[in-house]
Parts: sequence; structure tokens; C-alpha cells
Amino acid sequence: MSADRLPDTDLTRHRRLREQGSLDRADLEAILDAGFVCHLGVVVEGRPLVVPTVYGRDGRQLYLHGSVASRSLAGGAPVCVTVTHVDGLVLARSVFEHGVNYRSAMIHGTARKVTDPEEKLAGLRLLTEHSAPGQWTYARRPDRKELAATTLLALSLEEASVKIRTGAPEDGEGPDAELGLWAGVLPLTSVWGAPVTDPALPPNHPVPEHVARRGGTRHG
Amino acid sequence: MSADRLPDTDLTRHRRLREQGSLDRADLEAILDAGFVCHLGVVVEGRPLVVPTVYGRDGRQLYLHGSVASRSLAGGAPVCVTVTHVDGLVLARSVFEHGVNYRSAMIHGTARKVTDPEEKLAGLRLLTEHSAPGQWTYARRPDRKELAATTLLALSLEEASVKIRTGAPEDGEGPDAELGLWAGVLPLTSVWGAPVTDPALPPNHPVPEHVARRGGTRHG
Repeated sequence: MSADRLPDTDLTRHRRLREQGSLDRADLEAILDAGFVCHLGVVVEGRPLVVPTVYGRDGRQLYLHGSVASRSLAGGAPVCVTVTHVDGLVLARSVFEHGVNYRSAMIHGTARKVTDPEEKLAGLRLLTEHSAPGQWTYARRPDRKELAATTLLALSLEEASVKIRTGAPEDGEGPDAELGLWAGVLPLTSVWGAPVTDPALPPNHPVPEHVARRGGTRHG
Repeated sequence: MSADRLPDTDLTRHRRLREQGSLDRADLEAILDAGFVCHLGVVVEGRPLVVPTVYGRDGRQLYLHGSVASRSLAGGAPVCVTVTHVDGLVLARSVFEHGVNYRSAMIHGTARKVTDPEEKLAGLRLLTEHSAPGQWTYARRPDRKELAATTLLALSLEEASVKIRTGAPEDGEGPDAELGLWAGVLPLTSVWGAPVTDPALPPNHPVPEHVARRGGTRHG
């Protein structure tokens, strides 16, 4: 081992490079923008509840579609919102070094129920355009009654943390490298399929361009 | 509207058919078996914490790889584990009816740290084979030191709930159908890519059959 290299211990330079936290806001925003379903954690009578829901964002806040969980958030309860993209399986030489390549963002804060109709409409627009770009303009927007029937939560993006793991297994330079086993990554990719027209419509009903062009593209 | 049909109200028969809870254990097991990353919710000092982690299972228990969260679980704290597969975007005629096709399982219980070395080894085997079938036999298994350094949690599968939404948007028969807009589903699929060999190995190192055959197959 040459003197200008850090020693290869349990917490090597590689490990730190391959799985690390990030304090970069751009990483947070990229992870949020790559998905549209988060896991919202709340505490109900002392017990955790984790529900999937859809979200959108602007530069300061996350907007979440309220569901079962929102019933318990009336008083501005603490929440944790986690968005995770799984990018692949890390298949190492030892079971111990197996892992997952992923990008994950965790946001902590106090969820606020959005009640102002103008903010609610703006938040729903962000949420809709985040998951289904183009649909806010194309589809019929919420009327007053629908707006009232929708629960929208807002959460500041201030307190957030990011963890990312990329790259090969960690044991390519340790004693296990001598085993002669194959090691590497099995990548996992999420892909939009071709749009499936509602059977209530004639099958030849034209698919709008903003929907059609997503088919076959990568998601996540 | 004919007399033998239920009225098309806000909570129609269709809605109930397209998004519903399931009490079928087979649905729970199918959702768990279709994935390998869950979101584990715990309560830390009164606040929720939601972390992604890997899992495996047998017929009675879920085994989870312990992480940050496990530090707060020493005393057998309540947890909520949620596994979600996103199958597509539901693009309706109205923004209000937009949604997500998904399969989600939620397991409630008290996590137990596995300390018995035999159970720990068996649990790690389940967890490894669940995400990376074939690797328990192929890779070097944990030695005593590695086993001690691994935190494994067990959670009973007894208290679980399942929610599944499939199919077209809900507004194909209501007044919004008259708008003449396209509606349907944009499917989302997760696919394993071709294995990427660790750069520490010669690029022509043969990929074992149990890894190679997953490339190109559907996940989720």
C-alpha cells in the first residue's frame, strides 16, 4: 500500500464515497423531482403510521395529498416524509457487503393543512403537474366543491436530509476479492409504459401529446 | 339509470372495486414478495422517522435489516412497515379523479431485535434470498463477527392491511365523460437491467447464471 493512499479499513474512502449523506439542496430537489409517491409517517396515539401518498413541491414547500393520515394532523403534528428511489442491488463477494444502490430524501417538519382556497388551488396544481405534467391544463380543474373535499398538506422543505449510494460493492479490494467470485450491481429501472385508454372511450380516441410522449421514457 | 344498478354516487361500486382493502393473506404475501425495500416507521422522542430498508419473510414474520431506526427499538417499540408498488398514473377527465394505481401493504407490530445466532442466520438468509435469490449459496456467508455486527429485526405478519387500486379512472360514466377528453392509465413498470460487473474484476468475468437470468425481467 502506497503512502499517499488512505488505509482500506472498515470505513474506507470508498465506502464513504459510495454511500453518503448530502447537504446539497440540489440533490434533495433532484430526488423529489424524480418521483411522485412518498411515504408519509405520522404518530397516531403513540404508534407510527406510514402511508404512501402523492406530492408536489415549490422551492420552499412540499405539498402532500391528505389521506387517512391527515385526520391525525389537525393540530400540526410532526411528520416525516421519505422519498426513495431504488437503483439496483449491490451483489458483493460476501453476504455482509450486499446492499442497495438508492437515492433517498427524508423531510422532517410539521404538516399544515392548507385551508386558503388560493393556496390550495396552487398547491394542487403543483401536485398534479409534478406527477402528471400537462394535466392541469388538459383536464377539468377542481370546482369549489371538489376543492373543499380535498385535503392538502404543506410541509416546509427546510429540515431535510439526503442519502445516496451508488457504484460497485465494497469488497473488491479486501481479502474476499481472492475468492474469485463475480460481484457487481444488478440495476433496477422504472419505465413508463404506453398509455392505456379508458375502456369507456373508443379505443382510437387520440392520446394527447403530453401523455403519449412519456410512454417508454425512464422514471425515477 | 336502470333499477338493478346501484346509483353512481361519490362512492360508487366502481370506486370500491378499483380501490379497495384486502383481507386476503395471499395479497399481502404477493405484495411483500414483489419487492425488497420497505419503509420502516418508528417513533423517536415523539416524532415519526421513516427509513427505507430491506426485508425478507417467512410465513409468520418479516425480517428487516436494522439501521439508524433500530437504535430506538431496543425496548420493543411499535413500528409500521409499509411496502408500496406504484403501477401507474390514473389520468382522469377531472383533476379531482386523478390517482395512482398501486399495491400497498402495511404491517403494524412491535419489532424485536433478533439475538439468537441461529435465528439471525436464518433470518439473514431469508432477507438475502428475498432480494438476491441465489446469493446465499453463491457468496461468502456471514462469519461470527459479521453476524454480531448485523442488526436484524423481526416483526410478526399478523397485523397487516392491504390496499390495491387497479384499472381505469372513475369518471368514465359521470358528467365529465361528456367533455370528450382522453382518459386512461399511464403504466409504470420496474425492470432489472443487465448485470454490471464490479470494475475491480476483469470485464469478462463470467456472470453467474442466477444473476444473469434476472436481467431484463420485470420487478415489482
